[in-house]
Amino acid sequence: MVQFHCLTFLTDYGLEDAFVAVCHAVALQVAPDLQITDITHLVPLGDVRRGATVLAQAVPYFPPAVHVAVVDPGVGTARRGIAVEAGGSLFVGPDNGLLSVAVAAAGGAVRAVSLTNRALWRDTTAATFHGRDIFMPVAARLAAGLPLGEAGDPVEVTRLVTLPQPRWLINRAGAQVEVVTVDGFGNVQLSLPGAEAPRAGLIPGTSVTLAWAGREVTVPFVTTFGEVAPGEPLCYRDGGDWVAVAVAGGNAARRFELRPGTRMTLTVT
Amino acid sequence: MVQFHCLTFLTDYGLEDAFVAVCHAVALQVAPDLQITDITHLVPLGDVRRGATVLAQAVPYFPPAVHVAVVDPGVGTARRGIAVEAGGSLFVGPDNGLLSVAVAAAGGAVRAVSLTNRALWRDTTAATFHGRDIFMPVAARLAAGLPLGEAGDPVEVTRLVTLPQPRWLINRAGAQVEVVTVDGFGNVQLSLPGAEAPRAGLIPGTSVTLAWAGREVTVPFVTTFGEVAPGEPLCYRDGGDWVAVAVAGGNAARRFELRPGTRMTLTVT
Amino acid sequence: MVQFHCLTFLTDYGLEDAFVAVCHAVALQVAPDLQITDITHLVPLGDVRRGATVLAQAVPYFPPAVHVAVVDPGVGTARRGIAVEAGGSLFVGPDNGLLSVAVAAAGGAVRAVSLTNRALWRDTTAATFHGRDIFMPVAARLAAGLPLGEAGDPVEVTRLVTLPQPRWLINRAGAQVEVVTVDGFGNVQLSLPGAEAPRAGLIPGTSVTLAWAGREVTVPFVTTFGEVAPGEPLCYRDGGDWVAVAVAGGNAARRFELRPGTRMTLTVT
Repeated sequence: MVQFHCLTFLTDYGLEDAFVAVCHAVALQVAPDLQITDITHLVPLGDVRRGATVLAQAVPYFPPAVHVAVVDPGVGTARRGIAVEAGGSLFVGPDNGLLSVAVAAAGGAVRAVSLTNRALWRDTTAATFHGRDIFMPVAARLAAGLPLGEAGDPVEVTRLVTLPQPRWLINRAGAQVEVVTVDGFGNVQLSLPGAEAPRAGLIPGTSVTLAWAGREVTVPFVTTFGEVAPGEPLCYRDGGDWVAVAVAGGNAARRFELRPGTRMTLTVT
Repeated sequence: MVQFHCLTFLTDYGLEDAFVAVCHAVALQVAPDLQITDITHLVPLGDVRRGATVLAQAVPYFPPAVHVAVVDPGVGTARRGIAVEAGGSLFVGPDNGLLSVAVAAAGGAVRAVSLTNRALWRDTTAATFHGRDIFMPVAARLAAGLPLGEAGDPVEVTRLVTLPQPRWLINRAGAQVEVVTVDGFGNVQLSLPGAEAPRAGLIPGTSVTLAWAGREVTVPFVTTFGEVAPGEPLCYRDGGDWVAVAVAGGNAARRFELRPGTRMTLTVT
Repeated sequence: MVQFHCLTFLTDYGLEDAFVAVCHAVALQVAPDLQITDITHLVPLGDVRRGATVLAQAVPYFPPAVHVAVVDPGVGTARRGIAVEAGGSLFVGPDNGLLSVAVAAAGGAVRAVSLTNRALWRDTTAATFHGRDIFMPVAARLAAGLPLGEAGDPVEVTRLVTLPQPRWLINRAGAQVEVVTVDGFGNVQLSLPGAEAPRAGLIPGTSVTLAWAGREVTVPFVTTFGEVAPGEPLCYRDGGDWVAVAVAGGNAARRFELRPGTRMTLTVT
């Protein structure tokens, strides 16, 4: 009995090689009617935090699915491979925190297994390509109806590796935040949920002074890019409803030298 | 009743983020059996002209389809979202000219609506992500059989924003043209239709002197790249049957500093 | 009667233009239920050897399929278009060696035809876009059940263009090899099959001195990247089970200036 019709795939494999296609092929051998949607394969090599963030941004828009993610600098070492049930979907990948942000956003892990059932792996497994040899064949079998418990030994969900949550704090003058991620356009997502913005005083029509690392810039808080002139910076609630900093038609991360983890003070005026 | 089995998707979203996948997910939630073909997501950010050109190059090869295109520097401002019927297909996107070249090539707009029916949008819509929140869900519903008229208020097709057509003029000596677009290899497509080339004297075996911005180069007019030595420039009728300039195994746009809009005189010798 | 449900596609077309999508569209017009998997479209322009290598890496993981590959610097010249049967699959593309490595890996060509049956081509064919006008429509028809012999005139399989095989030689001290290919991460695949590594003395725990072009470096032979410190070089059996050189979290090809064809001596210590 098919459990999931939809499988998503996110990696740092790049698009120049056959790695992604080979994983698709392995899945399609198991489940020919699976609908595979690539989320991205351009996560910077080994950047688990970035992979986790992009995965968490994508998952809420999918129907129940098997989400396979592989950003795995520890491939072939002792780190576990896992499958986690959360929010009616399954998440398959290395137990290095990559899945943790999406799993938390989906309501938290309900059950998890370590992928120890070698009968589900490809016959020969390379120490450096678990995406092809373990994660994808197991994920495809789970999509095709294999019960989660048959993929391996149970793992206490509290023992799964999780990434530290980006912090934010609202105060009288505004908020203390940090940079969570930078998208391909250089738009800078902060750790403050959009829904909390009004409580920090951030409403359209205000200005906000961003201060970080000895630098400072004051920008308008607006609804959309078209409200400022091309080349001008702005603060807004982004498509994922996080407070974010951008430059209209430009690259805010580059202009302001902002990167994930940068701490910033927002002062509303 | 399913109206269209095929949906195409073109944007400037890039491939590093989850934006494209999220739009796929939204469409698949509405119409799980939809076949989505990505045209490209590497249109330079905000380059409406380039997006319009690439869309127009692709559409003629598809069966009747819903074509969704989003290159939308004015997202969230007063510019309309539209759905346009032309040549038996539907075109969905911002009313900024992006759809206009493909619509004209498909025989011109037959009917159009402004996407004002909010019941078809996602429940919450971000001011900066209409691709996900408006264009894609509406397009998927149209593919699934929703009558065009239910997507919003009718718009006079003569009131749709259209891009100016690139001009060309055949004269005794050859032709006056302009650069329309540059592909990923640096091949330079001119505004002269291949079918008009013989009338301008451009037939295999001739030479043509290209003159622009005080520069001049004489190149052979050939049928295919293999007729000139590697590194040599050439003029030819390209895959879309437009007169074009290339360098065998090289990048003509970079070598000759040609960009869309550059005016050029062709003199056949 | 459908012969193949799966079609793969590999080119040097890049992802910025509509070229790939147009080829998908042409195939879907012929065979709407075809499942098309893109292997890669980022083969460096005209690099037949690299295209052949990537194709050969991908094919073994697919079910029986029609594999279409187009890296074709001689498009429009006298080089043949071919369809080749090997290992229960069909390979379609230019007869310039691009298909030859995958065909050999699949057990060698059983039958081949020159794609001379113009009735199967698109009505108008551009001299520079055989992917769209010849290879894809013919391949889609073959997938849909057209007998191979109807695609054109038979070709002696011994007359097909083949690329020279990378050489390797095991000796007392280790092996003589050459660089076969470099993946998107800069990992350097050598011409020595992983299964032969033990015979050359390469087993986990040994060290190997690589010597090429007057340079020399000694690296550990390991099973996986995690066994060396970040930034350190290593030698290992890669995902395709070839002996390879890498730098943990780095780019070995760039660091050691290695490129396809470089000859190298491996001395085990």
